[in-house]
Amino acid sequence: MTYTAVQYEMTELTWHAPAPKGSEVDVDLTASFTKDGRTVSVSGFYRGNETYSVRFLPEEAGEYSYEVSGVVRESGTLSVEKAKEGSHGMVRAKGTHFQYEDGTWFYPFGTTVYALLHQQGSLIDQTMKTLSASPFNKVRLCVFPKHYEYNHNDPEFYAFNKYKDAHHDKSMKHIWDTNHPCFAFWDRIEARLRELGDMGIQADLILFHPYDCWGFSQLTREEALTYLDYAVRRLSAFPNLWWSLANEYDLMSCSMDDWNAIAHFIHTHDPYGHLLSNHQIVKPWDFANEATSHICLQLPVVDEVRDFILKYKKPMMIDECRYEGNLPQGWGNLSGFEMVNRFWKVVTQGGYCTHGEVFLQKTDGYRGASADAAAPAGGKNSSANEKPLGQTMAGKADASFGDTPLAPDNASDHDDEVLWWAKGGVLHGESPARIGFLKKIVESLPGPLTYGCHVPTMEEVREMKKHAPKDVDPFSFLGALLRMDDNGALALAKSGCGFEGKVYARDTESTESDDTVLADLKYFDTQCTVIGEIDLPDSGIYDIDLIDVWNMTRKTVLRGMSGHVRVPMPGQEGMALLALRRS
Amino acid sequence: MTYTAVQYEMTELTWHAPAPKGSEVDVDLTASFTKDGRTVSVSGFYRGNETYSVRFLPEEAGEYSYEVSGVVRESGTLSVEKAKEGSHGMVRAKGTHFQYEDGTWFYPFGTTVYALLHQQGSLIDQTMKTLSASPFNKVRLCVFPKHYEYNHNDPEFYAFNKYKDAHHDKSMKHIWDTNHPCFAFWDRIEARLRELGDMGIQADLILFHPYDCWGFSQLTREEALTYLDYAVRRLSAFPNLWWSLANEYDLMSCSMDDWNAIAHFIHTHDPYGHLLSNHQIVKPWDFANEATSHICLQLPVVDEVRDFILKYKKPMMIDECRYEGNLPQGWGNLSGFEMVNRFWKVVTQGGYCTHGEVFLQKTDGYRGASADAAAPAGGKNSSANEKPLGQTMAGKADASFGDTPLAPDNASDHDDEVLWWAKGGVLHGESPARIGFLKKIVESLPGPLTYGCHVPTMEEVREMKKHAPKDVDPFSFLGALLRMDDNGALALAKSGCGFEGKVYARDTESTESDDTVLADLKYFDTQCTVIGEIDLPDSGIYDIDLIDVWNMTRKTVLRGMSGHVRVPMPGQEGMALLALRRS
Repeated sequence: MTYTAVQYEMTELTWHAPAPKGSEVDVDLTASFTKDGRTVSVSGFYRGNETYSVRFLPEEAGEYSYEVSGVVRESGTLSVEKAKEGSHGMVRAKGTHFQYEDGTWFYPFGTTVYALLHQQGSLIDQTMKTLSASPFNKVRLCVFPKHYEYNHNDPEFYAFNKYKDAHHDKSMKHIWDTNHPCFAFWDRIEARLRELGDMGIQADLILFHPYDCWGFSQLTREEALTYLDYAVRRLSAFPNLWWSLANEYDLMSCSMDDWNAIAHFIHTHDPYGHLLSNHQIVKPWDFANEATSHICLQLPVVDEVRDFILKYKKPMMIDECRYEGNLPQGWGNLSGFEMVNRFWKVVTQGGYCTHGEVFLQKTDGYRGASADAAAPAGGKNSSANEKPLGQTMAGKADASFGDTPLAPDNASDHDDEVLWWAKGGVLHGESPARIGFLKKIVESLPGPLTYGCHVPTMEEVREMKKHAPKDVDPFSFLGALLRMDDNGALALAKSGCGFEGKVYARDTESTESDDTVLADLKYFDTQCTVIGEIDLPDSGIYDIDLIDVWNMTRKTVLRGMSGHVRVPMPGQEGMALLALRRS
Repeated sequence: MTYTAVQYEMTELTWHAPAPKGSEVDVDLTASFTKDGRTVSVSGFYRGNETYSVRFLPEEAGEYSYEVSGVVRESGTLSVEKAKEGSHGMVRAKGTHFQYEDGTWFYPFGTTVYALLHQQGSLIDQTMKTLSASPFNKVRLCVFPKHYEYNHNDPEFYAFNKYKDAHHDKSMKHIWDTNHPCFAFWDRIEARLRELGDMGIQADLILFHPYDCWGFSQLTREEALTYLDYAVRRLSAFPNLWWSLANEYDLMSCSMDDWNAIAHFIHTHDPYGHLLSNHQIVKPWDFANEATSHICLQLPVVDEVRDFILKYKKPMMIDECRYEGNLPQGWGNLSGFEMVNRFWKVVTQGGYCTHGEVFLQKTDGYRGASADAAAPAGGKNSSANEKPLGQTMAGKADASFGDTPLAPDNASDHDDEVLWWAKGGVLHGESPARIGFLKKIVESLPGPLTYGCHVPTMEEVREMKKHAPKDVDPFSFLGALLRMDDNGALALAKSGCGFEGKVYARDTESTESDDTVLADLKYFDTQCTVIGEIDLPDSGIYDIDLIDVWNMTRKTVLRGMSGHVRVPMPGQEGMALLALRRS
């Protein structure tokens, strides 16, 4: 047969054949696609109704020969036309950054909608519309439904059918027969993955998570690998797919051996080598693992981004740095500014950050800088005067409470509210616009931002101490280093490293040569300085912009600068300097 | 002879006798004061002009007999009248808090003026006036002058005379003859310590520090102990004195053996046992040391206050959590809110915090929440347009820079500006008023705030894991703990511990019995929640105030509460709840 396809776009070959007798996952169907002596082998999958498919993602344009064997036998030609404009292929790790297959840099600005795929269609549609108008180009979302506070709804479809004899006890073991997928579920999630792809959004697909009441967190290793086999057969050819082994893997009952087996399985079965990582609550995954393409962390204090990048020399995603919102839970009540602040800190350390949002019953009264702007929610007459939230005994509120902003009296954390972080819907927060502002700045640069300051290692500190002159000035920096023990000296040596990303000449990540610094973005965090110091190479000429990250202003304040520059600053939080090389 | 004195006030006996032949420190003069069979022995000191004094701090009212021996021989009676109203005696450690000798609690709200004693008299007078109108009741200040950025002035007097053959080389060794004090210096600092005492301000006297160009940081151990001998003889009888061995001891060239000798010397020579601690830059002092009465830390991230208190079971001072200001240096540009925020976090963990302030050339334009409010400094016409700060090559600023707030073009960090943190003067910041607001709240409580939540230890977590049932619900908190390794489980177990100080029934620090909870102050930090959860004992009835720590408002919002209470909150940073037991 002769088929046509488009470079960087999934193509699908489909046949009818008798349904499998046993497993509907481990079916005998493989295809190989060959071009210029290079062959890509893929496994096909059964999709119900006596229908089988093979999916292939052509990474090059031109003529491929293909050969299908197993329950279907066929060979022929696949003619692949050149990628459409704006289609860049899969995203891969490139040094400590991300790049599309065509060489275009990809700067992830992600958000989080864990249970996006398990909501009603109208809500998913609304979420997609919100995403399309947002700055976000990546979304973290789960294959399995989420059971947690604010999440108590059952989805319409599950990924697999239950064992015929399944009974749901406290252990939640042996419920799901992963050899028998629920085809409607997979059809549906694929449609959403395609939609995301059409919007240019990467789907960071979370394969496991602990927030479960259905039994998906309690699969045996064998059941789990069967599930992954099906997922890899069906989904690998999606160009916008990333594999996230888990959300908070270390809360689950799998052993490290299980996790390594899972990572290894995906790594060896995914023919394209999609990005793969794993996400912790406490104990970071071993990012040196060969299956792992990049670093993923949950990290509320984002000062160590640079250390992780330097240690693993892989791209760095902060998957979760807590969420903008107004929840009582500590993970869900960042101010808009603090969410934006974390993005800037991560990006200027050469990493990438992820947004999330959780606003209870949002009205303008519950957020914002001024208490005066606050008002009781939803125009209701009721207030906490009559009915304080969830107290355990009857009490009487003071009448003078009337002018204090009130939370709505039905704002219980056991209600199933539509919070963006799990269910999607619309965005209420103040951070997305500012994240978009940062994204535009980053995308305007000639290349990715790599951490600019040299972060010393213990070894370097030890070397310095060993080779330092004996009669060093007792209060010089070196003198202080010499007197401290190793840990102290390392802490002191690191203490001056702020947040500063530099763009080196394209494809150069060397921080050694000053000549390659095309841009330098220094972020001052919450520091209210009136003098912004920035060190530029003496060999270049730079113009310097002052950036207000919250008010989203950017203004060139100095031109023709080199070397150490002291820039007047307004003495406020959330300021940055961007130096761009002019010559 | 018969003398009179007042309880809790220093009394001084003075005689003329020939000047010492050798050391002017190690003079042969001791006095013992006896009452009810208890004797306090003190060493006298030489003060120049053939004059010797003995100082004594009577801790009880009534008749003392005394006996002086050495270069003076005399005995007689000291008649001590009862303390004046408002005079409470020395401050001592009491459990994990501070208490005056008469049993009144002392809640330190300190500030920092390192080189206060080394400025011109008019500036010191101004500082004293500022202090008297401020909320601060403790000040950190150095015996030796300070050499550092913004501090390049020589003082009028030094503590000691130089060796006759001293020559000032790079090592700064053997310059100061500590056996020969400069009496004018000591007279002068004592006058200031008295002034502070009269204002009810504790003097936290820093005995050593590394920021030196004169040689005081390079005393030999023998020279140092001679200096301390003189300081103890002269100053121990000051009721408002605290000993701080050093500012940033671990930056100095002394060995740990030296530091232990210093601590031991003071501990054994000070007849009254004034509060004593030591202050680090990186490596905390060993607060278990028997000479050490309380914990002192430099700690910018103040979340671990509770851990230190639980570990050492001593009172906790955060001496330094960075400073409110607008400097380029990372330690000197906290917003006013962040300084206030750290105070609240420390206080609601049962600790005590210290203020400091560093504003360069302050005008209203350099701080504050809004860029619009900013204006060029000091009404000057000059701006960075003509003269950018300290750049290394000529550059031209953009004309559009005019509406960006500018730093004054002479605001160099090498200028010797009068910054409060070292030199005093006047306060410019926004935090002192808010610190005063917090102080009033704390002083209105029936006793000190002790950390309210139980912070688990590794051992407790291990025990919990050992004795947990095997078939625990896999996603319960306990289930998650069980699956994690020790470090992970400890981190998880600690993760829910926020900032909550409880006042237990006076003199009870037990966190075990709910019945003793007289008040509960919970601080929500930067969390923008609309629901404030607070757990009160079921056995009491409480009224709950909502506190806005920045706008300094306090309003009773719920009355007659018990148990778990959910309080409506405005969804803004810097909110606290104070529950007061009504019955």
